[in-house]
Amino acid sequence: MFEFQIEATSGAGRAGILTLPHGEVKTPAFMPVGTHGVVRGLSAEDVRRTAAQIILGNTYHLHLRPGEDVIRSMGGLHRFTTWDRPMLTDSGGFQVFSLQGLRKISEEGVEFQSHVDGTYRTLTPERAMEIQWALGADVAMAFDHVVTGQAPHAVALDGMEQTLRWLERCKTRHEQLGDGRCQTIWPISQGGTHDDLRKRSLEGTLAAGPWTGIAIGGLSVGEPKPVMHRVLEALEPALPREIPRYLMGVGFPADLLEGIARGIDLFDCVAATRNGRHGTAWLPTGRISVRGAALIGSAEPLDPECDCETCTTFPRGYLRHLFVIEDILGLRLISLHNIRFLVRLGEQARAHLLAGTFDGWSHEWLRRHYARGT
Amino acid sequence: MFEFQIEATSGAGRAGILTLPHGEVKTPAFMPVGTHGVVRGLSAEDVRRTAAQIILGNTYHLHLRPGEDVIRSMGGLHRFTTWDRPMLTDSGGFQVFSLQGLRKISEEGVEFQSHVDGTYRTLTPERAMEIQWALGADVAMAFDHVVTGQAPHAVALDGMEQTLRWLERCKTRHEQLGDGRCQTIWPISQGGTHDDLRKRSLEGTLAAGPWTGIAIGGLSVGEPKPVMHRVLEALEPALPREIPRYLMGVGFPADLLEGIARGIDLFDCVAATRNGRHGTAWLPTGRISVRGAALIGSAEPLDPECDCETCTTFPRGYLRHLFVIEDILGLRLISLHNIRFLVRLGEQARAHLLAGTFDGWSHEWLRRHYARGT
Repeated sequence: MFEFQIEATSGAGRAGILTLPHGEVKTPAFMPVGTHGVVRGLSAEDVRRTAAQIILGNTYHLHLRPGEDVIRSMGGLHRFTTWDRPMLTDSGGFQVFSLQGLRKISEEGVEFQSHVDGTYRTLTPERAMEIQWALGADVAMAFDHVVTGQAPHAVALDGMEQTLRWLERCKTRHEQLGDGRCQTIWPISQGGTHDDLRKRSLEGTLAAGPWTGIAIGGLSVGEPKPVMHRVLEALEPALPREIPRYLMGVGFPADLLEGIARGIDLFDCVAATRNGRHGTAWLPTGRISVRGAALIGSAEPLDPECDCETCTTFPRGYLRHLFVIEDILGLRLISLHNIRFLVRLGEQARAHLLAGTFDGWSHEWLRRHYARGT
Repeated sequence: MFEFQIEATSGAGRAGILTLPHGEVKTPAFMPVGTHGVVRGLSAEDVRRTAAQIILGNTYHLHLRPGEDVIRSMGGLHRFTTWDRPMLTDSGGFQVFSLQGLRKISEEGVEFQSHVDGTYRTLTPERAMEIQWALGADVAMAFDHVVTGQAPHAVALDGMEQTLRWLERCKTRHEQLGDGRCQTIWPISQGGTHDDLRKRSLEGTLAAGPWTGIAIGGLSVGEPKPVMHRVLEALEPALPREIPRYLMGVGFPADLLEGIARGIDLFDCVAATRNGRHGTAWLPTGRISVRGAALIGSAEPLDPECDCETCTTFPRGYLRHLFVIEDILGLRLISLHNIRFLVRLGEQARAHLLAGTFDGWSHEWLRRHYARGT
C-alpha cells in the first residue's frame, strides 16, 4: 500500500502508478477539489465520468460544516460523498493562514475565527491529524505554516521552520491514531521563493521521514510564474525519485505541462470549477467565454477535440443559452468540461511520457495554447 | 400518428398509450416543464433517467430567449435541448396573461412588454402557431385567453369566447404551416369555475375539431381544490373518450391521483423543480425540508421507497449538507427526486388501472400522504 512505481521518465518528467487503499492513481494526474465534500456543482458520478482518479477534501471547510464527527458517524468521507476512489485531504493550513485578521498564530497552532459563524477555534498539528483521521481519506497532509508568494526571507524562514517543527508533531499524532495501513501522511515543504530556504525545508522534511509522498506548498500564491518554475527547477534534483511529488494549488492547463516537465506528479486547483461557474471554458487553443455572442445559434461542440459529456452532447449555442437564462446546468456542464480537460491533459502527458515523446508534444501543445495570447 | 389507445379504465380513470412523432407516452403521465428549453437545473439525460416520457417547453420564454429563429436554425427544440423524446409547447397564453400591467388585450392578440428587456411585442393566435412550428415540438397548444380562478362570470365568459374565436385562427394558421404529420395542435377549454361556461367552451371546442387531444386550462390558478375537482367532475362525461386529456399546470402529488380519478391523462407543473430548488422533497408520507436539522448525520436514503438516482445513491445527511453549504448539486438532486416521484406516481397509477386496483390503491395512497397533515 502507498507504493509508487515509476514506469517511464523523460528528463525530470515521470509517468508512474500510485497505489492507495481506494485504488490506483496513474500519474501525472490532476486532482479535482471537493472543498466541502463536493466538487462544486458535481455529483461523485459526474466526477467519475471525467475519469478523475482522486479528489481532494478541505479539512478546514469540512471541520466547520458538517464537522468531522458527523462525517465519521456516517462512515467517513467516502461514504458521505459516495466517492469510492482515492481521496486526499489538505490539513487546513492554507485556509487558516488565508484568514487574514481572523487568526492568531502561536507555536501551539492557529487560533482562528470561523468564517461561517464567527466562533473561535484552534487548529494545531495534532487536531489537523485527528480531523483528517476522522474524515478517513487515503492521504492526509501535514499541518503547515503558509506564507505569501512575496514573503521576505525572514518571514519565509519563520514559516518554514515552524512547518518543520509541526511536522514532527503531525507525524507523532498520526502514528498514535492508526497503523498507517488505511491512511498515510504526506509532508509539505515550504520556504517561499527563497532557494536556500526551500533547500533547508526539503532537507529537514526528508530527515523526518521516510514518507510515501511529498508536497510542495506555498507556490502559486502570488509570485510570478517564472519564479515558481525556478523554484521547482532548483528543488527537483534534491527531491527523492521514489515517491510522488504533489504541487499544491496548481494549476491551469499550462501549469500542468510546465510542472510535469519539472518532475511533478500530482496537481490540484479550484480554477477548473471556478472558471466553469463563470462560464469560462478551456480549449486547446486558449479559452473561451461561453457567454459570448459568437456562440449564438452555433450547433458546434464547445471543444471538438474533447470527449467529455458536455462536448459530445450539447451544441455551443445551447450552452450559451444556459448562461443567458442563468440555469445552473450551464455551470455544471462547463465545470465538467474544464475538469475533463485537465484530467485528459494528464492522461495525454502520461501517454507521451510512456512513448518517449513528451518534450516535443508538450512544447507544441503550449505553443498552440498560447498562440492567441489568452 | 397522434393516435391514442385506451388499454383499461376504472370509473373515469384511463390507462392509455399516446403515439407521437418522437415516441410513445404511456398514460397517465406527468410531464416535467422545461421552461427555457431546460428542466431547471437538469440535463436531458438527467430527465431521461427519471423515466419522464415527454417534457414541455414554454413558447413565451423561448420566443424571448434565444428566439425561435435561433432554435430553428439549430435544428429545432429537440436538437437544441438534446431531448430526443416527445415534447409539447404551450402557446404563451398563460404567460402573457400573467404579465399584469405589462400587456394589452385586443381581438387581434396580446401586446406585451418583455420581462427580459422591456421591448414591446405582440402575440397573436397566428404568431403563437408560427413560433411553435419553428420550435418543432410534437404537440403545439392553441393560444388561449386565461382568466384567474376567482374571475366573475362576465370576465370568464369573455375569456372563454375569445379563446374559441382564437382557436379557429390557430387551426387555420397551423394547417397552413404543415400537413399535420410532425406536429399536432391541441385546443384548450376555458370557462373559469363556472359550469355553464365550461360546458359551452367544451361544446365550442369540440365543434371546431376533430382534435388529437384536448387540454383543460384555467384551473389551479387560485381557486380552491374542491372547486377544481367539481369542475373536472362536471366536465368529464362530456369529454370525448378517444383522445387524451391534459390538465394544464397541475400538479402536486395528490393532484395527480385526484385528476386521474376524474379522467385526466396528462399533467404538468413546475412545483417539482421549484420545490426541489427550495429543498422541499416529496415523500409518500407527505413532504420534508431537506434543510431540517433532523437530517444531520443521517445515513438513510431520502425516500427509502424511491428508485431515483438521489435516493439510491446519497445519504440524507449529505443532501442536507449540500443545502447548508449552498452547493447547486443539492438543488439538482432534490429536483430529480421530485420529478421521479411524480413520474413514478403516474407509472403506479397506470399499473393499478391496468390491474383494476386503482380505486383502493389511490384511496390508501392519499390517506397515507395526508396523514401527517402536510
